[in-house]
Amino acid sequence: MPELFNVLPPAAAYALFLRHFRPRVEGEEVLTVDALDRVLAETVISQGDLPAFTRATMDGYSVRAADTFGASESLPAYLNIAGEVPMGATEPVRLRAGEAAVAYTGGMLAEGADAVVMVEHTQRIHAHAIEVLRPVAPGENCVQVGEDVRAGAQLVPAGRRLRPQDLGGLLAMGVMRLCVARRPVIGIISSGDEVVAPDQEPKLGQIRDINSYTCQALVQRAGGETRLFGIVPDEREPLEERAREALATCDMVVLSAGSSVSSRDMTAEVIAALGEPGILLHGVSIHPGKPTIVALAGEKPVFGLPGNPVSAMVLFELFVAPTIKRLLGQADPDGFRQVSARLTRRVASAPGLEAYVQARLEQREGELWAEPLFGKSNLIFTMVHADGMIHVPLDRSGIEAGELADVRLF
Amino acid sequence: MPELFNVLPPAAAYALFLRHFRPRVEGEEVLTVDALDRVLAETVISQGDLPAFTRATMDGYSVRAADTFGASESLPAYLNIAGEVPMGATEPVRLRAGEAAVAYTGGMLAEGADAVVMVEHTQRIHAHAIEVLRPVAPGENCVQVGEDVRAGAQLVPAGRRLRPQDLGGLLAMGVMRLCVARRPVIGIISSGDEVVAPDQEPKLGQIRDINSYTCQALVQRAGGETRLFGIVPDEREPLEERAREALATCDMVVLSAGSSVSSRDMTAEVIAALGEPGILLHGVSIHPGKPTIVALAGEKPVFGLPGNPVSAMVLFELFVAPTIKRLLGQADPDGFRQVSARLTRRVASAPGLEAYVQARLEQREGELWAEPLFGKSNLIFTMVHADGMIHVPLDRSGIEAGELADVRLF
Repeated sequence: MPELFNVLPPAAAYALFLRHFRPRVEGEEVLTVDALDRVLAETVISQGDLPAFTRATMDGYSVRAADTFGASESLPAYLNIAGEVPMGATEPVRLRAGEAAVAYTGGMLAEGADAVVMVEHTQRIHAHAIEVLRPVAPGENCVQVGEDVRAGAQLVPAGRRLRPQDLGGLLAMGVMRLCVARRPVIGIISSGDEVVAPDQEPKLGQIRDINSYTCQALVQRAGGETRLFGIVPDEREPLEERAREALATCDMVVLSAGSSVSSRDMTAEVIAALGEPGILLHGVSIHPGKPTIVALAGEKPVFGLPGNPVSAMVLFELFVAPTIKRLLGQADPDGFRQVSARLTRRVASAPGLEAYVQARLEQREGELWAEPLFGKSNLIFTMVHADGMIHVPLDRSGIEAGELADVRLF
Repeated sequence: MPELFNVLPPAAAYALFLRHFRPRVEGEEVLTVDALDRVLAETVISQGDLPAFTRATMDGYSVRAADTFGASESLPAYLNIAGEVPMGATEPVRLRAGEAAVAYTGGMLAEGADAVVMVEHTQRIHAHAIEVLRPVAPGENCVQVGEDVRAGAQLVPAGRRLRPQDLGGLLAMGVMRLCVARRPVIGIISSGDEVVAPDQEPKLGQIRDINSYTCQALVQRAGGETRLFGIVPDEREPLEERAREALATCDMVVLSAGSSVSSRDMTAEVIAALGEPGILLHGVSIHPGKPTIVALAGEKPVFGLPGNPVSAMVLFELFVAPTIKRLLGQADPDGFRQVSARLTRRVASAPGLEAYVQARLEQREGELWAEPLFGKSNLIFTMVHADGMIHVPLDRSGIEAGELADVRLF
């Protein structure tokens, strides 16, 4: 246990974890058409030029640009029509000096042509000749061979979470299969004597499990898969047994523990027993979410999240989601969506604690405002009503009404 | 054809479409645990209070607050311990005046108690009595019955795209099944004599289909399902046949047409023939993406997107994605992710055209900068290299280097 029971600010706490964590990305092959939102495991290099032929960007005539130099309305250039290059034509028309060929937007230029004259700048004299009323420069109204991408160039870099245009670009180059990161499997355990499954009618003193399902959905959003290990009572043996089972079959384990001191202590004992190096951190200077445990059992991360669902979500976003993205080899694993908004009311925070306060966002006269939703940090419906969370830095004791604050979006 | 061949700015064009479009949301039942990112079709009302019992938010003792009034370090209040309320206890301990019961964070208060004294503010005298060193007010260190949500209150509103906390909140209330919007099915057709499937080796003059797959991925992101109707040559009869087939089996049809004038004209003829009211708009004052067709065949939207993949993506985001969200009944269907960034270089735009320019984003000394990626509007890899698109409003002829601009994120 290298640095046991340090209470660090969230950024320093996660940096400490990263000094011990060695993520290994495993690749698997998928069809490119199925790869939306998967993370590319290997950079894809272009095997050819795109486009592979010079393409017109306008309807008109492909020409040798030099034949049009000096052309004007009063002194047009006369060109004979050598033919037409229809869309998808696979046999080019050959152009000699003084000739033009009908060209279509997106279509190929005639062989020997180096520019396209827009149809609007020509006049048809008869079936076989045109007048060109304006000169064109070489390359004008064309996309050159390799202008979109060249053979040997990087198509899409490893670590990219694939977007629609990435798939489009890869398929344009005939890349039908990709090596993407295998989705890491995250084992999720809820513990607590008071917790029952959502489909049960809780008796007085019992509550339904929330954290298994918010964590499951958060894992899905981060790009992982989940295995739920159910609800375990606050007893050391069954919890340790379930945690070992999860550890054996998953890439990471997330426990949400009871919130009482005794339950937390017991969770810490179980996590510490799972293997070396064990607990790296116990407690983070953040509100909500202080009683958080960050550990490694062998190479596998184990997170002990607070039992209260809001704390669990906050800590998941700060610690667990970036860890899943590292297991995916995702570039910018710490990125998140954030906006700047003015506070409608003051938000207070205990100095020495980084705080997250749920807020509803609203556009007012072109400016974004954040309305803090005050509620105890364990109310799940405060999260349901919120659009994001106001971030109060560690060194601030609050943010004033009217001040700009950073809001992390859900 | 109510308002044929108007060339309107994008916002006015879409507003015109909306005046004719009557989306009907169809519901289907799904398990709540499977409902991440689905759109709720019916507002869910709470059938009970959460919590259903008063819960402690601290470890300590539940007490009658009045018994602690006036207590101090020098003059503590003496309370007898009536018992313990363990986590998940379903039988309450009854508290009489002058009594306390051991309470755990998240656990139930003893019957008759109205506050919790933190363990730090007590001293254990012997097995059956404590001293309370500070007074507590009624409700202190507790979550009241119904404080999270009350019976009869709205749990989650219809139109919400469900997030992790929404699922958590619903499951906390025992809501195991939900009525969500059926995913609309979007038929996608690519047309063009030059277009071949991605797994084919294009001959000179041919290009691989991109739009079917970028549109497919964009539909998935927007919450719809796709049916691909393949690549159709630029001939009226096969295109009309394929479009009718798509219209018969889908909720919306998206065609990406060839880019030449003749191909576009033919696509317009086909779309116009699909049914009344037919084409509402042909052409939008936007770059890239001007030659766009917006139509309704009966109640089903039909979009004719430009063949070039960048234009097709821009118009998809502006017109097709919001329409899918309307078919889902999603609140805020026109919302998108946008940031404000300073331009590293000037971006020019033709006045009278709303422009979108691909850009890469970069943080520099705490400020967000957008580097415009200049490339012809039909280069798919400009989209691959970009993080978003700079928006140049209709009435601007450009945005200067150093100026703030709105950037729509992908």
